Amino acid sequence: MTAPAPELDFVFHPRSIAIAGVSTKEGPGFGGGGFVASLQEIGFRGPIYLIHPSAAAIRGIKCYPRLTAVPDEVDYVISSVPARLVPQLLEDCITKGVRVLHLFTAGFTETGDAERAKMEQAVIARAGEAGIRLIGPNCMGLYVPAARLAMMGNQPPEPGPVGMVSQSGMNAGEFIRYGLPRGIRCSKVISFGNGADLKAADFFDYLTDDPETEIVAAYLEGIQDGPRLARAIRRAGASKPVAILKSGRTEAGSRAANSHTASLAGSLQIFDALCRQAGVLRVESLEALVDAIVTFRFVKRLAGPRVVVVGGGGGASVLAADDLNAAGLELPTLLPETQEALAKITNEAGTSVRNPIDTMSMWDEGGFEATLRPVLASSNVDAVLYHTGFGSGPSLRLGDIRSRSAAQAEALGKLQGEYDKPIVVAIRPSATLEGMDSGFEFQEMVWRQGLASFPSIARAGQGLAGLLAWQRMREDC
Amino acid sequence: MTAPAPELDFVFHPRSIAIAGVSTKEGPGFGGGGFVASLQEIGFRGPIYLIHPSAAAIRGIKCYPRLTAVPDEVDYVISSVPARLVPQLLEDCITKGVRVLHLFTAGFTETGDAERAKMEQAVIARAGEAGIRLIGPNCMGLYVPAARLAMMGNQPPEPGPVGMVSQSGMNAGEFIRYGLPRGIRCSKVISFGNGADLKAADFFDYLTDDPETEIVAAYLEGIQDGPRLARAIRRAGASKPVAILKSGRTEAGSRAANSHTASLAGSLQIFDALCRQAGVLRVESLEALVDAIVTFRFVKRLAGPRVVVVGGGGGASVLAADDLNAAGLELPTLLPETQEALAKITNEAGTSVRNPIDTMSMWDEGGFEATLRPVLASSNVDAVLYHTGFGSGPSLRLGDIRSRSAAQAEALGKLQGEYDKPIVVAIRPSATLEGMDSGFEFQEMVWRQGLASFPSIARAGQGLAGLLAWQRMREDC
Repeated sequence: MTAPAPELDFVFHPRSIAIAGVSTKEGPGFGGGGFVASLQEIGFRGPIYLIHPSAAAIRGIKCYPRLTAVPDEVDYVISSVPARLVPQLLEDCITKGVRVLHLFTAGFTETGDAERAKMEQAVIARAGEAGIRLIGPNCMGLYVPAARLAMMGNQPPEPGPVGMVSQSGMNAGEFIRYGLPRGIRCSKVISFGNGADLKAADFFDYLTDDPETEIVAAYLEGIQDGPRLARAIRRAGASKPVAILKSGRTEAGSRAANSHTASLAGSLQIFDALCRQAGVLRVESLEALVDAIVTFRFVKRLAGPRVVVVGGGGGASVLAADDLNAAGLELPTLLPETQEALAKITNEAGTSVRNPIDTMSMWDEGGFEATLRPVLASSNVDAVLYHTGFGSGPSLRLGDIRSRSAAQAEALGKLQGEYDKPIVVAIRPSATLEGMDSGFEFQEMVWRQGLASFPSIARAGQGLAGLLAWQRMREDC
Repeated sequence: MTAPAPELDFVFHPRSIAIAGVSTKEGPGFGGGGFVASLQEIGFRGPIYLIHPSAAAIRGIKCYPRLTAVPDEVDYVISSVPARLVPQLLEDCITKGVRVLHLFTAGFTETGDAERAKMEQAVIARAGEAGIRLIGPNCMGLYVPAARLAMMGNQPPEPGPVGMVSQSGMNAGEFIRYGLPRGIRCSKVISFGNGADLKAADFFDYLTDDPETEIVAAYLEGIQDGPRLARAIRRAGASKPVAILKSGRTEAGSRAANSHTASLAGSLQIFDALCRQAGVLRVESLEALVDAIVTFRFVKRLAGPRVVVVGGGGGASVLAADDLNAAGLELPTLLPETQEALAKITNEAGTSVRNPIDTMSMWDEGGFEATLRPVLASSNVDAVLYHTGFGSGPSLRLGDIRSRSAAQAEALGKLQGEYDKPIVVAIRPSATLEGMDSGFEFQEMVWRQGLASFPSIARAGQGLAGLLAWQRMREDC
């Protein structure tokens, strides 16, 4: 038995799309032409109609002088025409029976101009009368892999369990991009800009009811219709793991949010209290948002704050201990039996079998698993952090990097499952392209084994601490 | 007239080196063989002698069964033999008239074993009697590009004005590596481990007196001989820009520092107060240490906290405003004349000529300079932050990335000089190798134009705020 489709499902599954405002010139890649290219790239399955006053065809697709000239039904229209032409386009949408109008078009309320704010109001009112739902204005619209909708280039058709609501198209795009190499795949991503008609609350409600969405991420600049948004966030937080990045947390940020999407940022204190009540994790950067979602997706649950750090390099180990402890995690002293087990495989003087564990024996044949097993078996350990780097140090002279990475990733996946205890991987940043390449490769292997990966030890610590904070809030809800 | 060479200069300019404890097997790349490879790679100009009980030659270099069998003078010995063999090696050093013994060898005090601590004390006492200076034990030693000394592979022979003192070889290596693509080149880098004889204070004093060092960075785990170290740090801080990363700031970090280099971390509060009095910037991560040195090297001085942010993308602009404001910087409202000048070149509705400046006209012919000039000329602006990204968005479809990068870097360099106002560049992280590649290329172009670059907007903000804090401390000193 599957859950009934949520009310707004039609918004995310158009059968045909028309795009108004596609230039015949090679533009900067944004706007109408960008949408055509992105939809072609991801392989949208229905027909795409282009509206152009004079061109016969663009990118191989026939153009019509007006939307009303399209001979077939059109579910969804993307507007890239100037703001002053939007009222006429809306009338044509009404005539054609269009269900959704996505206004990429900017130049409304966010300009601060009273005339333009009035125009936005008139468009909302007219669309409301006619039963057309609006996305935007001033936004990138939708990325729905399963429906083969993309808002930008390089967005893969592979779907996943993460839904995202974003007031900024750019931040939606970066969230998707940063998440990809770490195993984050999406159900629906919405960039909604000014949110004139469909607002953050609508999209939270949709993702809460959407059976394809298991985890929710959000980037918000402003608070529209506070009580309704609060209800929607509470509903989402009660049923799914949710992390929200709220910008406008400083005075300069508030001003910038207002000029970007006409948003009133509101008080961060109030928003923070709402998140706590709702059992929703609030983060302060896009990187932390991706980290939180990676943690929800792969770590899922931590039994407690006790982490053992394993990896090469004394200096890195000391800084790791600082970073994790500062994030609120504990580095327990290893139990006598764990120390004994490790001493058996570590025969180097000066190599401590303390936490952090920093031993060259990890690089010996069989040493990798032999080091991790007694740690994972230990009753005073809630998680293991394995850190490594590429493109420098002894690893460069240690034979084939790719096959070592593959063996390590496989061992980590197997051990995480066997001991039912999270192992997270921190891949320390590299300063060379070769190191980056090896790091990306290992990252891909690691998430395919079901492990969370982070681009630094500090961020891994903050990710784990965030998960613990979120668990505590959920227990209090 | 050049300054007289500082007292310890001989330590950094050996004429010949012997390495004891080089394995004939391909090892993990660390230890004796690693030093041979690194010295060969950087092109050490004097003879290298290898000490091996039985081998005839290793890596093409003749081996001698004992140091005393070397027929020529030896200035500097690197020990990679087990700790128990160090006393005999030291006796041989005394016989040979060696001046410096670098003990890569670990397994002394840091093991926590009383016998081994006693052995370390005996070695110090014997070396002191004989007038031999020790580096270490438990460290990677020296990187001195001008003298063609390297502690690891991939360390370039190109010298520069940055000196570094580090208790960890790994962190020294990462500092060098992370700094390279951002234009940081080094005079001397010292990894000193346990600091049994030559200590952090000696190296601070040396770098203070060294005419080749203009900026000093340090990574410290513990405080040895507190009053002397405090004096050395004060001397350094009074004459050069200094930034220090002190680990062991948490309880777990302190324990890890003790197990790594036998360090007693001491109170962070006291160390922090010392730094403030000394006019030295204290940072909390290796990344922040590199950022601080980049800021000292390229920004040099900020007239005040007022930054204008320029770059594409509404969402990124809002987060940038938050990040900079949170770091303690101000985003001034643009003056009417600046707004007017910008409005002339920006004809897009909905594109704000507010700070942050986010306008597509930057991508037009001539638009880049035209946007920056009125901002740099503005009397209420102390610095400009330009942020950009690679591997995504419209930039991908905007023609040749490399020639655009080159033109931008050149314009930025020219404008920074012309207006005598710092321009810093934030290259937002990319999630693809292609984007990384383009980002590395732009980064290289940017520092060659004399500009500071940062891997994120938040880090650029923290870097600038750190510089301001440092300037304030220096004024108070």
